[in-house]
Amino acid sequence: MSHITLNPEYTALITLCESIPGPDETARLAAQNRLNRLTKPPGSLGQIEALLTRLAAGTGQVCPGLDRRAVLLVAADHGVAAEGVSAFPQSVTAQMVLNFLAGGAAINALAGAAGARMLLVDAGVIADLPDHADLKRLHIRRGSGNIAREPAMRREEALAALLAGAAIVEEEVNNHGLELLALAEMGIANTTPAAALTSAFTSAPPTRTVGRGTGIDDPTLERKQAVVAAALQRCREQGVDVRNADPLDVLCELGGLEIAVLAGATLAAATHRVPVLIDGYITTSAVLVAAALAPNLRTHLFAAHRSHEPGHALALAHLGLLSENGAGPLLQLDLRLGEGSGAALAMPLLVSATRVMRDMATFDQAGVDEA
Amino acid sequence: MSHITLNPEYTALITLCESIPGPDETARLAAQNRLNRLTKPPGSLGQIEALLTRLAAGTGQVCPGLDRRAVLLVAADHGVAAEGVSAFPQSVTAQMVLNFLAGGAAINALAGAAGARMLLVDAGVIADLPDHADLKRLHIRRGSGNIAREPAMRREEALAALLAGAAIVEEEVNNHGLELLALAEMGIANTTPAAALTSAFTSAPPTRTVGRGTGIDDPTLERKQAVVAAALQRCREQGVDVRNADPLDVLCELGGLEIAVLAGATLAAATHRVPVLIDGYITTSAVLVAAALAPNLRTHLFAAHRSHEPGHALALAHLGLLSENGAGPLLQLDLRLGEGSGAALAMPLLVSATRVMRDMATFDQAGVDEA
Repeated sequence: MSHITLNPEYTALITLCESIPGPDETARLAAQNRLNRLTKPPGSLGQIEALLTRLAAGTGQVCPGLDRRAVLLVAADHGVAAEGVSAFPQSVTAQMVLNFLAGGAAINALAGAAGARMLLVDAGVIADLPDHADLKRLHIRRGSGNIAREPAMRREEALAALLAGAAIVEEEVNNHGLELLALAEMGIANTTPAAALTSAFTSAPPTRTVGRGTGIDDPTLERKQAVVAAALQRCREQGVDVRNADPLDVLCELGGLEIAVLAGATLAAATHRVPVLIDGYITTSAVLVAAALAPNLRTHLFAAHRSHEPGHALALAHLGLLSENGAGPLLQLDLRLGEGSGAALAMPLLVSATRVMRDMATFDQAGVDEA
Repeated sequence: MSHITLNPEYTALITLCESIPGPDETARLAAQNRLNRLTKPPGSLGQIEALLTRLAAGTGQVCPGLDRRAVLLVAADHGVAAEGVSAFPQSVTAQMVLNFLAGGAAINALAGAAGARMLLVDAGVIADLPDHADLKRLHIRRGSGNIAREPAMRREEALAALLAGAAIVEEEVNNHGLELLALAEMGIANTTPAAALTSAFTSAPPTRTVGRGTGIDDPTLERKQAVVAAALQRCREQGVDVRNADPLDVLCELGGLEIAVLAGATLAAATHRVPVLIDGYITTSAVLVAAALAPNLRTHLFAAHRSHEPGHALALAHLGLLSENGAGPLLQLDLRLGEGSGAALAMPLLVSATRVMRDMATFDQAGVDEA
C-alpha cells in the first residue's frame, strides 16, 4: 500500500488490513488429524473435508460453531445505469430495498431458511428511502459516478464507505457475535462495475468479463462491453494503470458504493477470523479490492457458488477460490440473481460440515475396524 | 412386467408400481407461473427454479412443505466381499450399524443438521446385532450370495425385501407424515453390486462402472472389475440377458438386500408423491431397479449429488437425472462415503428452495418494476 498517504482514515484502513491473521496451521493440522480418525474412509467426504480444514485454519478452531450467522446486504445506485447496461430501470434498486424490508425478496426467504440475520445497508441509493429500524443508512453520496465517463467516487468517499462497512461488522461482532458472514448486494447495473474491476485485477478483456447480468439481450451486451472498455480506457488516460495502481484508485475509478462497503466489511470480518462467504460476481469484485489491500485475507474467504456470469470464474480463480482446497465454490446452480442468494443457499452446507466435525465418533470411540 | 407370475406378492408389487402417479402438469405450470411473477429476474435462480417446477409436478403442490423429512438407512452384507473387493473388512457393516445407533456416524451428524428422522433397517447383516428400538430388523436372509459365483438372492427373498421397504415407508407416512425421503445404505462391498446393476441396466462395461469405492488400490480395482465381469457372464450363462430380463431377475442375480429394500421404499414413497432424494452409487443402483419396474417413478426422483464413483454419472444419466431439468445433482463435492451423506447434505437446499416459493412477494405485491 505504498501509494497511500498516511492521513487518519488511511491509518485506520492500514491497521484493519494489517490486523488480519494468516492461517492457523496448528488448527488446520488438528482438524486434518481429527478427520482422519472419524468413522469414515479417510477423505471420503471429499470437498467437505477440504472445507473443514480450511475453516479450521481460518478460524483457528477445529470445530467452529458457525451458529451466529449474518447476511450483509448492501445497496447502492450506479451512474453507469445511464448507459443502458441493465434489463431493469434504476428505480428497482430502491424498490427492492423496500422489498427486503418487507421480507418479500429471495434473500429474505433464503436467509430465513439459513437461520441468518439480515443486515441491510443503504450505501448510496438515489431514490429517497424511508427511515426504518432495519435499514442502516450511510450518507456518503447518492449513486456513484458513471464509470464510462468519470470516476465512481472520490478517494475520501471510498475510504468512508470501506470504514463504514468495517464498522457495521464490528458492531455485529460486538452486539450479536458473528461466526459466519455472507456478502450480498443490490444495485441496478452493478455487474458493470464488477466486470470493470475484474478486468482491472485479472487483466482479462471486457469480452471475457462482461455477461448478461439479470438477463440483457445481445445489443445491450455489446453496449455493456463497450462501456467497460471505455471505463478501462478512461483509467489509462487518467494515468491509473489498473494493473499496478493502488487498489483504492481502482475502486474509486471503477467500483461502486456497495462494493466499497462490502470490501471494508470483508476486511473487518477477517480481522476477527470470521469466515466470509462470497456470493456472486459483484460481491466477488468487492473481495478483489479487499484482497489487493490485504494479502492475508484469502485465508478467510469461501466461495458459495459459481454463478452464471462468465467473469465470475475468472475473479474466483484470481482469488485462489476456484480450486479443490476447500475454498472452491460449493454450488454450481446457474444462479444469476445476486442479493446474496447463493451465499444464503450455501450457508447450511457449511453448518452441516461443522456438525460432522463436532458430532462424529472416532474409530476408537465407536469400536469400528479401520481399512 | 410381462415375465412376472401373478402370485400374491407379485400382485402387491404390481399394484405398488401401478399406483405411482405421473407428473401433475397443472401444478408444474402453476409453479412456473408463480416463479415468473416473483420479485427476481425470470429464471435468475437457475437450477433452483427447475427444481421447484419439478417438485411441483412430482408432489402436485406449488409450495410443498418438505417439513417432515426422513433418511432411510438400510444395511446389509454381501457375499461378494469374500472376493476381496473392499478396503474394509465385512465386520465393519455391523460395527457401523452400532455406530449409527449410537449417533456417531457422518449420517447422524448430517441428518441432524438437516432436521431429518433416521430410519435404520437391518436388511441382512451377517453379524448378530442387538435388539434396539431404533433398529428395524428384517428376517429375510443374512448376507446376499457372492454374485461372482451365485445369485445374490432368490426371487421370494427379493420380493420380501422390496415389500418390506415399501411397508417401512407406508408406516412412516401413516405415523409421522413424510414429505421428503432420502435414501441411504451401509454394506461393505456394496459398490460391487451397484456396479454390476449399472452395467446391467446401462450396458456399460465393468471398466466404466467399477470404481474405487471407499478407497481401494489398483490391484483391488482390477480384481473388482473382474468380479463384476464374472457376475455379468454368470448371468448370461444362466440365461438372464440383463438388458431384456425382468428387472426382478436382474436384482436377484446382481443386487443386494439393502438395494432391494431401498427399491421398494422408493416405489412406495412415489405412490404418495413423496419426493425421493437419491444419494450415491448404491442408492442410485436401487433406483435403477425400481425405475425399470415402474416408469412413472422418474417424476419423483431427485439426485442429491454426483459422487466420486465414475459409474454414478452413467446411472444418473440412465435415469434422466444428469440433466438441467431440475432433477440433476445439486452437489458435486467428490463424496464417496455413502450412508446417505450426500442426500442429507442436499436436503437443506431443497428446503431453502421451497421457502423461495412460499415466502417471496410477486412484482405486483411488492410494487417493483419489471424488466
